[in-house]
Amino acid sequence: MVAAAIVARVNLAMRYNTRPLRTPTRRPETKGEHCVSQDLLERHQSTLDGALAAIVDRGSWSAYPEVPSGKIYGETARADGESAFKACLGSPWGDGDGDRVGDEVSPYGLALGVTYPLRSADALIDAAKAASTQWARASIEERSGVCLEVLHRLNQRSFEMAHAVMHTTGQGFMMAFQAGGPHAQDRGLEALAWAWRAMHECPPSATWRKQVGREEFVTLNKTYRLVPRGISLAIGCSTFPTWNTYPGLIASLATGNTVLVKPHPGARLPLAITVEICRAVLEEAGYDPDVVQLAADSVDAPIAQDLVGRPEIGVIDYTGSSAFGSWIEDHAGDSAVFTEKAGVNCMVIDSVEDLRPVTGNLAFSLCLYSGQMCTTPQNILVPRDGIETADGHLSFDEVATAIVKGVDWMLSDPARASEVLGAIQSQDTADRVDATDGTVLRAGGSVDHEHFPDARTRGPRILQVDAADLDTYGQEMFGPVVYVVATDSSDHSIELAASMARSQGAISFGIYSTSDEVLTAAQDTMTAAGVPVSCNLLGSIWVNQSAAFSDFHVSGCNPSGNATLTDAAFIAGRFRFVQCRIPVPEAAHAGV
Amino acid sequence: MVAAAIVARVNLAMRYNTRPLRTPTRRPETKGEHCVSQDLLERHQSTLDGALAAIVDRGSWSAYPEVPSGKIYGETARADGESAFKACLGSPWGDGDGDRVGDEVSPYGLALGVTYPLRSADALIDAAKAASTQWARASIEERSGVCLEVLHRLNQRSFEMAHAVMHTTGQGFMMAFQAGGPHAQDRGLEALAWAWRAMHECPPSATWRKQVGREEFVTLNKTYRLVPRGISLAIGCSTFPTWNTYPGLIASLATGNTVLVKPHPGARLPLAITVEICRAVLEEAGYDPDVVQLAADSVDAPIAQDLVGRPEIGVIDYTGSSAFGSWIEDHAGDSAVFTEKAGVNCMVIDSVEDLRPVTGNLAFSLCLYSGQMCTTPQNILVPRDGIETADGHLSFDEVATAIVKGVDWMLSDPARASEVLGAIQSQDTADRVDATDGTVLRAGGSVDHEHFPDARTRGPRILQVDAADLDTYGQEMFGPVVYVVATDSSDHSIELAASMARSQGAISFGIYSTSDEVLTAAQDTMTAAGVPVSCNLLGSIWVNQSAAFSDFHVSGCNPSGNATLTDAAFIAGRFRFVQCRIPVPEAAHAGV
Repeated sequence: MVAAAIVARVNLAMRYNTRPLRTPTRRPETKGEHCVSQDLLERHQSTLDGALAAIVDRGSWSAYPEVPSGKIYGETARADGESAFKACLGSPWGDGDGDRVGDEVSPYGLALGVTYPLRSADALIDAAKAASTQWARASIEERSGVCLEVLHRLNQRSFEMAHAVMHTTGQGFMMAFQAGGPHAQDRGLEALAWAWRAMHECPPSATWRKQVGREEFVTLNKTYRLVPRGISLAIGCSTFPTWNTYPGLIASLATGNTVLVKPHPGARLPLAITVEICRAVLEEAGYDPDVVQLAADSVDAPIAQDLVGRPEIGVIDYTGSSAFGSWIEDHAGDSAVFTEKAGVNCMVIDSVEDLRPVTGNLAFSLCLYSGQMCTTPQNILVPRDGIETADGHLSFDEVATAIVKGVDWMLSDPARASEVLGAIQSQDTADRVDATDGTVLRAGGSVDHEHFPDARTRGPRILQVDAADLDTYGQEMFGPVVYVVATDSSDHSIELAASMARSQGAISFGIYSTSDEVLTAAQDTMTAAGVPVSCNLLGSIWVNQSAAFSDFHVSGCNPSGNATLTDAAFIAGRFRFVQCRIPVPEAAHAGV
Repeated sequence: MVAAAIVARVNLAMRYNTRPLRTPTRRPETKGEHCVSQDLLERHQSTLDGALAAIVDRGSWSAYPEVPSGKIYGETARADGESAFKACLGSPWGDGDGDRVGDEVSPYGLALGVTYPLRSADALIDAAKAASTQWARASIEERSGVCLEVLHRLNQRSFEMAHAVMHTTGQGFMMAFQAGGPHAQDRGLEALAWAWRAMHECPPSATWRKQVGREEFVTLNKTYRLVPRGISLAIGCSTFPTWNTYPGLIASLATGNTVLVKPHPGARLPLAITVEICRAVLEEAGYDPDVVQLAADSVDAPIAQDLVGRPEIGVIDYTGSSAFGSWIEDHAGDSAVFTEKAGVNCMVIDSVEDLRPVTGNLAFSLCLYSGQMCTTPQNILVPRDGIETADGHLSFDEVATAIVKGVDWMLSDPARASEVLGAIQSQDTADRVDATDGTVLRAGGSVDHEHFPDARTRGPRILQVDAADLDTYGQEMFGPVVYVVATDSSDHSIELAASMARSQGAISFGIYSTSDEVLTAAQDTMTAAGVPVSCNLLGSIWVNQSAAFSDFHVSGCNPSGNATLTDAAFIAGRFRFVQCRIPVPEAAHAGV
C-alpha cells in the first residue's frame, strides 16, 4: 500500500518540484500541493521531532533500537539479513556493463567477490550536476522526508548491514550490528536534526519597511533561498564505513547538495548498500537517483585525488589517516572540508578506590575491536611512584600488572575473546603491531577465532615505556598497541596528554581519580586542548563510546580533525542563504 | 554613578571569573554571585533582545540611530567628536615608548600624523595567550555584556569615528558617520546575536541515563564546555575599516577568543579607537585588556604574514584584495578563515516602465563613495538591440546616454558631488581608473571638492564595450570605472553575469525588468551562483546597500569570499563544545 501510494504521487511530486519559482518558496504554499517526499516527512515526523528534542536535551535517546532482536526487527530479520548478504557475494553489484572494481577480502578470511561499477570523475560529476537543480529546489520538508525514509530503510536492513560491516571492517557481529546499523543511523538522524534546525534559522521571506524621509517609506519584499554548495564528496573509512559517513551524507543531502559516496577500497559493500537505498528512495519520490552516486575505486587507481579540488565539489567529508586528511585539507580549494583524522588518546590513572573494576573497564576498552576505534586509549599514564587506593599504595608495576591481568581475563573465554576482539581490518595494522618493540608486558599476537579459523586477529600488545620515550608513544600506533607510561606525577600525566593532543590530536581522554582537584585540573587542561573527558568510568560504560544526540565526537580544536559529529559548524558550511529583494509599492503595502 | 558601580564590582567580578570550576558552568549558579560584565548584559539586555528578534524576523531594525542628529546623540556630540578627532592628530596613540608606526594621509589631503605602537608577532601572541584563559572561562553572559558595552561606547563616539573613517577611507562625512558608525555597530550587534544563539544551541549540562541490562542503568552527568579556537586575527580593509571588521571582532570576542586587530596601513585610526574602547571596557570589567590588541604595521614591514599560519592563531577574518585573501586561505593551516574578497558586480537592464528613475537610482549607486564599495555595480549589461519601455523602444545608445546623463546630473551640484563622491582612498585606485582605455562615454577625472582642495577625487568613468570584450570588463576594476556592455539579449546578460560570478566572484547583482519571467530567470541563475539579487530598485533604496539583520552580505558560494555577514557559518567555526562526563551513582540518581 505504501509503495502504491508512492507511485501514485510521483507525478504530483514532479510537478511540484519543477514548477517555476516566481516567488521562491522552500515550503509548500498550499495544503493540497503535496509531493511524495513531503508525505515521507509526515510518516517520519515523530522520529524527526524526537531527534530535534534530543539534540537540545542531550540525554540518552535513540530512534533505532540497538538490540538485534527478532521481537524488534521481525522474527525472520536475522536470517533474511544473512541471506541477503550471502546472495550478493561473488556477484556484480548494481547495473552497468562497463569496467568494474572489487577485491574486498573479509578480515575473517572470506573473499567477498563483489564487483562495483567503476566510473570516471567526469562521469560522476556530470551526472551529479544533472541531478542537482531539482534537488536544490526541493523544499526542506521534501529533502528531509527523503533522508528519514533512507534512514528507516537502512534500519530495516540492519542485519544485512551487520554482515557487510563485519566482513569488511573485521568488527565482531554485535558491534557491526550496533555501530554499523542503529548507531550509525542515529548519527545520521542527529545530523538531519541539526541541519533542519540550521535551515530554519532564516525565514523563507520577510517584509523590510524603512522610513527614509518625513513621509517616505521604502518597502522591500525579501525572499531567502537556501543555496547548496554543489556536489558533496563523502570519503569513507575502512573501520567504520557507515558510522563515520552517515552524518556528512545526510547533512549534505538535507541541505540540497548531491553526494558522491567514495568508500574505502577495503570496505565498499556497506556504502554500496547505503547508496542503493538512497537511490531507490530518491527515484520513488520523483527525484533523479544520481543525487547520490557510488564512486568506487581501488588502491591501484584511486579516484579521490581526481575529485578533490575540482571546482564542482563544494563539500568534502573525510574520515581516515592524518596524512591523506591533511592532503585533502590543503588541496580542497574553495570546498568546505570536514575531517576526522587520527590522534593519540590517553588514559590517566591518578588514584582509585579499588583497582579491579578500573582494570576491568579498561580491559574492555582496550580489547573492543582490537583497539581499532578512533577513541581507543593508546597510552595509559601512571605515576612512576605508583598510586593511592582505598586499600593503600600500589606501585607502578602493580598497576601495570593489573592492567595486563584485566586484558588476560577479558580474553580468557574464547567466545568472548572472538566477539570482543573481532579481526584486524588490514594487514598493515597487524604488521605495525607485530613490529613494535620494547619492554613487553603482554605480547599480544594472534588469537584463535571460534568460528573463522582464517581470521586475522591480534590481542592487545602492552608495552612499558618511560615518559621520556615520547618518540615511541607520542605518535598514533593504530591497532592493539598499548603503552603503559611511567610519569613523574599525575600533573605530568595530564600535561603530557594535553601536549600530545595539541601536537598530534586526540579524540578521547579518560582519567581515574578520587581527587576533585585532579579531576578539575584534567577537565580544564584537556577540554582546552579540545579533548572530551571521561572521568572514573566503571561497569557498562566505556571511554571509547560516543553516544549520538549527547556526545560531541571530535572537537575540531586539535589536529585529530576539523569537524564535530554533530554541531552547527558541521552543517553551516554546506549551504548558504542568498536573498532576493524587490520593492513593494506603498499602495499595495498600505492595505496590509 | 555607572562608573562607580563598575569599580565597586570589579572585585566580585574577578572572584567570579577565577574561581575553581569543579563543575564547569557557563552561567552564574547563584543570583547573588554577580560580576560587572553580567551587569553590563543586564544594562543592555533590551538591545540584545531586539537583535535576537531581528535576525529571525529580518525586517528593518537598527539598534544604533543612523541620523547624525544632536537630538539623538546630544547637542554637543558633533563638536565634541570633531574636537576629539583633531586632538589626536599629530600625536602618538596609546602608551608605550617602543617603536612606532604611522603615516596615514587623508584622501582629502591632510596628513594625520598619528603614530601607533609597533609590536612583534611574538609579543602580541604572548600577551594574547596570557589573557586567554580568564576570557575563555567567562560565561556567555559576561562576554556578551562586554561586547554590548563596547558597541554602546562605539555608538557614543560615532561623530569622532566619522571623522576618523572619513579621513582614512575618503568617504563623505555622512557616509563615514553611518557606515563607519551605527551601521557598523549594527553589524557587530548582529554577529553578537548569532553568536548568542549559537552558544545556546547546547545546554551547559545534561543527565544521560541508559538502561544497559535488565535491572542495570548507567547515569552520566555531562557538562559541555564552550572552547574557543584560540587567538583570532582580524585583518581590516582600507575602505570600510569598521563595518567589515566589527562582525568578526565581536563574533570572536563573544565566543571566547582573544583578538588581534590588524588595521590596513591606510586606515588605522578607526580601529585604534575601536581597540581603545574594547580595552577600556575589558579592564573596567575585570579582564586583562590584552584580550583585544592593536597589531599596527606598515606597508614596508607588514605583520599579517608573520601571524597567518602560526598555530596559536585559531581564527582569521579578512577583508581585502582577492590575491592576499587567497594567500591567507592557502596559508592559514588549521585556522578557521573568514574572507571577503573582490568580485565583478553586474546590473542588467532588460526592460523598464520609465528609464529616468532607473538611471537616477543607478547614478547614485555608481557615484556613492566613487564606486569604492564592494557592492558597487561595475558592468551594466544592456541588449545591443535596445530595450522596451512603456513609451516604446529605446536603442542601446539611448540607454547608455541616459546612464551618463544620470551621473552628470548627480554630480552637477558641487555640494552634492563632494558629499556623494567623497575621495579616492588610494592613489593606486586613481591610477587604475585613469589608465582605462576604450570607447569613452564619460571621461570622469577629478572633481573639485567644496571643502578640501587637495582631495584626491574621481567621478565615474564610463566606457562602452561589447560582450565579446570579456578580458576588459570580466575582471574587477576597483573604483569608479563603469562598463556599459552590449549583449545579445537579456538571457545573455544574465548568463554573463552568472558566469563572471562563478569565476571571479560577485557581491551584488541588480536587474531592471517588467517581465516576471525574466526576473525569475535572473533570480534562479544568480542566486545559484551565490549572488544576492535586487530587482527594480527605484527611489531611496540602492543595490549597494546591505542592511544588518536583514541582508546577508557575501554568500560564501562564489570566489568573492567564503564568509557571510552574518550567518551560522560565520559563528560556528569560532568555538566548539567539548564535553566532560562522569558517572552519577544510581543511589544519588534514584532520589531525583
